[in-house]
Amino acid sequence: MTPPAVPSSPLRHLLTLEGMPREQLLALLDRAQHHADGHDDRQALAGTAVCTLFFEPSTRTRLSFQLAAQRLGADVLNFDVSTSSTRKGETARDTLRTIEAMGVRGFVIRHQDDGAVAALADAAAPGTALVNAGDGRSAHPTQGLLDMLTLRQAKGGDFSRLKVLIVGDVRHSRVARSDLHALQALGTGGIRVCGPRSLLPDDATLAGCTVSHDLDAALDGVDAVMMLRLQRERMDEGLVTSLDEYHRDYGLDAARLKRAAPDAVVMHPGPINRGIEITDEVADGPQSLVLQQVRNGVAARMAVLETLLRGD
Amino acid sequence: MTPPAVPSSPLRHLLTLEGMPREQLLALLDRAQHHADGHDDRQALAGTAVCTLFFEPSTRTRLSFQLAAQRLGADVLNFDVSTSSTRKGETARDTLRTIEAMGVRGFVIRHQDDGAVAALADAAAPGTALVNAGDGRSAHPTQGLLDMLTLRQAKGGDFSRLKVLIVGDVRHSRVARSDLHALQALGTGGIRVCGPRSLLPDDATLAGCTVSHDLDAALDGVDAVMMLRLQRERMDEGLVTSLDEYHRDYGLDAARLKRAAPDAVVMHPGPINRGIEITDEVADGPQSLVLQQVRNGVAARMAVLETLLRGD
Amino acid sequence: MTPPAVPSSPLRHLLTLEGMPREQLLALLDRAQHHADGHDDRQALAGTAVCTLFFEPSTRTRLSFQLAAQRLGADVLNFDVSTSSTRKGETARDTLRTIEAMGVRGFVIRHQDDGAVAALADAAAPGTALVNAGDGRSAHPTQGLLDMLTLRQAKGGDFSRLKVLIVGDVRHSRVARSDLHALQALGTGGIRVCGPRSLLPDDATLAGCTVSHDLDAALDGVDAVMMLRLQRERMDEGLVTSLDEYHRDYGLDAARLKRAAPDAVVMHPGPINRGIEITDEVADGPQSLVLQQVRNGVAARMAVLETLLRGD
Repeated sequence: MTPPAVPSSPLRHLLTLEGMPREQLLALLDRAQHHADGHDDRQALAGTAVCTLFFEPSTRTRLSFQLAAQRLGADVLNFDVSTSSTRKGETARDTLRTIEAMGVRGFVIRHQDDGAVAALADAAAPGTALVNAGDGRSAHPTQGLLDMLTLRQAKGGDFSRLKVLIVGDVRHSRVARSDLHALQALGTGGIRVCGPRSLLPDDATLAGCTVSHDLDAALDGVDAVMMLRLQRERMDEGLVTSLDEYHRDYGLDAARLKRAAPDAVVMHPGPINRGIEITDEVADGPQSLVLQQVRNGVAARMAVLETLLRGD
Repeated sequence: MTPPAVPSSPLRHLLTLEGMPREQLLALLDRAQHHADGHDDRQALAGTAVCTLFFEPSTRTRLSFQLAAQRLGADVLNFDVSTSSTRKGETARDTLRTIEAMGVRGFVIRHQDDGAVAALADAAAPGTALVNAGDGRSAHPTQGLLDMLTLRQAKGGDFSRLKVLIVGDVRHSRVARSDLHALQALGTGGIRVCGPRSLLPDDATLAGCTVSHDLDAALDGVDAVMMLRLQRERMDEGLVTSLDEYHRDYGLDAARLKRAAPDAVVMHPGPINRGIEITDEVADGPQSLVLQQVRNGVAARMAVLETLLRGD
Repeated sequence: MTPPAVPSSPLRHLLTLEGMPREQLLALLDRAQHHADGHDDRQALAGTAVCTLFFEPSTRTRLSFQLAAQRLGADVLNFDVSTSSTRKGETARDTLRTIEAMGVRGFVIRHQDDGAVAALADAAAPGTALVNAGDGRSAHPTQGLLDMLTLRQAKGGDFSRLKVLIVGDVRHSRVARSDLHALQALGTGGIRVCGPRSLLPDDATLAGCTVSHDLDAALDGVDAVMMLRLQRERMDEGLVTSLDEYHRDYGLDAARLKRAAPDAVVMHPGPINRGIEITDEVADGPQSLVLQQVRNGVAARMAVLETLLRGD
C-alpha cells in the first residue's frame, strides 16, 4: 500500500478551516495520520527555513510547530515578537517582509487580533506560505485538524454517526470556531454546544448546532465532549461570576461523564485548568484523549507544513 | 568558471571595515555575491558552533546571522545577554571565555558600547573568531558589506563613477560609519552627507565627504541615496525638534527623489520609520532596494562567517 | 584500543549522584573522557528530541547541554519556563507530559525547589529520560561529574591519594552536595570543608568530611581547592556581614594558595565573583582549571544524554 500523498492542493496558506472542501480536509488528515504512524522524513523540507512569528506568546504551540518542522528537516527560527525589544515601531507587514527577504519560506504566525494573519498573507511574496497558529477569536486551524484526527482515530471515519458536544467559552474561542468548521465540513451527525449565555457567540456562529445551557442534558448520549479552556480574565470582565460556580455548572466530572455514551471520549486543547473545566479524575482517566491530541498536533502540523512548503 | 574562492585572508575577526584593504573587501563581496546567487554549502561549517551574543537586543540582525550560519551547516546558539537573568554579575570577558571553552568557535556580538567587541577580541582564545554585529556608534561592518554588495549589484563595480548620498543621523550611526569606510575603500567618486547640524559627526569622520544641510541640493544628480534610521530618543535629547519638521527637511519623498539621477536607487538599513525618514511611496517604490539589502545581508554574513571560521 | 562503551547501566534518569555505584560513575567518566578527547558522534541521537525545561533561568548551563545534545545529533528545544508567559497556571507535571506527548524523549530540567525534578520523574512516561540540571540546594549531578572528570585529568584516577578542600557556601550549594557525593563514591583520601558557620550545612551532609572555619589551616597541603560561588542574597539574609570580610576570611588569593600542595589545582563552578571568592590572579593563573571545567561540562553532558537516551 502506498502512503497517502502529500495533498497536491491549491492551498497557498492555511488561514482557516472555514469553507475548506471536505476532500482537502480529508487529504490533510490522511497525511497527518501517516506522520502520526511514525513516518518522519528529514529530507522533505531540508534547506527550507521556517520562522515562528508570535505576536501573542504561546510556548506550547511554538514547540509543537518547531518539532513538526524539525522532523521534516527544516531550519527553524523563533521570533517572539511580544517579548522582543527590537521591533522599534516596525509594522507587522515590514517584519514579515523583512524575514521573508532573508530567505524564510514558511511562517507560523500567532496574533491577538482577528484577521491579522490573513492581512499578513496579503503582504507575503509569492512562494511564501503562512500558517495561522491562532488569531484573535477567529481561527486556530491546526488545532481543528488535530482534533479531527484524534476524533477519527477514536471513532472512525464516519462523522455522520457522531454526536459531539463542545462545552465552555465558545464565544472567545478560536479553537471552538475551527472545530465547528471542521465538524461541519466532515458532516458530523450532531453538533451540540453548551455554556453560559454570557460565553456563547452569536447565532450565526452556532448555525446548525443544538445549543444548551444545561450540561447534564447536553451530555446525554454524546460520543465526544470537547471541553474549552476558561480564561481567568472572563471573571474580571464579569462574564463568569466565580470559578466555583462555573465548575459546578459547566465543569466535567466523572459522575457527569456517565451521562455520555459509555465509550465517549473527552478532549481539551490545553493547558487545562484542573478542577475548573475538568476534574483530575476525568483529565487523567481512560476516556481522556488530551495527550493524544498533543501527540497528533505535531503530526497535523507536519502535514500542513509539508503541504504548503513542498517545492514541487 | 570556478566560483570565487573563500577569501584566504589573514582576517582573524571582523571588527570594522576601517582600514580594510580594497582587495580584501572585494574578495568578501565576490564571495557574498556567490552566496547571493543561491549557492549554499551545508558542509562548509558542519560541526562548527556559532553563538550570537547580544548585549543589546536586535532580533532582525540575530535572525540574519542565524540563517547565514545555518546555510553553512553550523550549529547556532543564541545568548540574549540583555534579557538574560543569568549573567549574575559576570564580566563580558568571562561570558565570552566560558562559552568559548564550551567549544563555540564563532561569536556574533552586538554591544551598546564603542569598542566593546574589539576589547572582547583581545580576550578571545586562538582559533576563536568574532564578528562585530554593531558596537555603539562605531561600526557595523556586515551592514557596510551588504550595502556595498547591493550598490554593486545595482550600479556595477566601478565605484569611481558613483555619487552616493548618506542622509540623516550620521552622528549616532554605526551603519553610516561602516558605509563611509567601505565607500572610501572602494574609491567612490563622490560621497555626500546630509543632515541637520545636530546630527552630523565631527569633521574627521566626514573627511573626504561633501557636507550639506539642504537635502534638495544634496540630492542633485546622485546615483544612490542611503537613508539612515532616526532613533526617537533624538527627540528627547533635544537634537531634533519634531518628527514632522525632520520629515519636512530630511525625509525622502517621491517629489524630492526626482532631483536624483533618474535611475538612482534608495537604500535604508531598516527598520524603517515610515513617514519619517522615507514615505511609503519611496520605500515600496521601484527605486527602493530595501528588501534586496535584507536579502544580501544573509549572503554577506555567510561570506564573513565562512572566511573567519573555515578550518584550513 | 576500543573506546569506552556507552555505559549500559540501568540508569533511567540522572537525578543525583548520591548512592550512585562507583562502577557506574567511572563508566560515565570514561565515556565523558572519550568525548573530551574530541570524539563527536552526530548519529548517536539523530532524530531524538531533547528539551531544556528551566523553571529557574541559567543560560550558561542551558548552552552547555544544548551543545552536548547538538554534538550527538539531537534536535534541541528550549523552554524557559521562568520567562514564559504561556504557562497560564499549568502544573509542572502537565507541562512535562505535554511536551513528552509531542515526542520529546529527553528533558534537561532546572528547578528552584528541592526534589522537584525527582517529582517530575515520577510523572514521566516510560521511555522518557530526565536529567537534573540543578534542583534547589539538593543536587547538580552533571556538575559533580564534570568536576570529577577535571580532577581525574589533573591528578590521575587514584582518588584515595587526594586531599580535596571545598570552600564557601556549602549550605546552599547543590554543586557542593553533588561534589561530596562523587568524591565519597570515588574514595577520596581526604575531604575537607571550610566556610563560615552560617554557610555550612548540618552534620549529616558533612559526614566523613573534616570541617574547618579557618581557610589558611584548611588549605594546608591540599591537592585541589573547589571554590563555591557566593550568592549576593546571603548578605540580605544576614548570613554574611560584608563582601570585604568574606573575601578576607574565605577568599582565595595567590598568597593563600601557597599553603596548598605546590601542584594544587583550583576549581570554581562559575560564574565567578572576581575579587570575592577568588582573585583575578588565581582565577586566571596556572593552577586554575576553571575553563577546563567548562570544557568538560559539555563532554560530561554528552555522556549522560547518550547513556540515558540511546535507543538500544
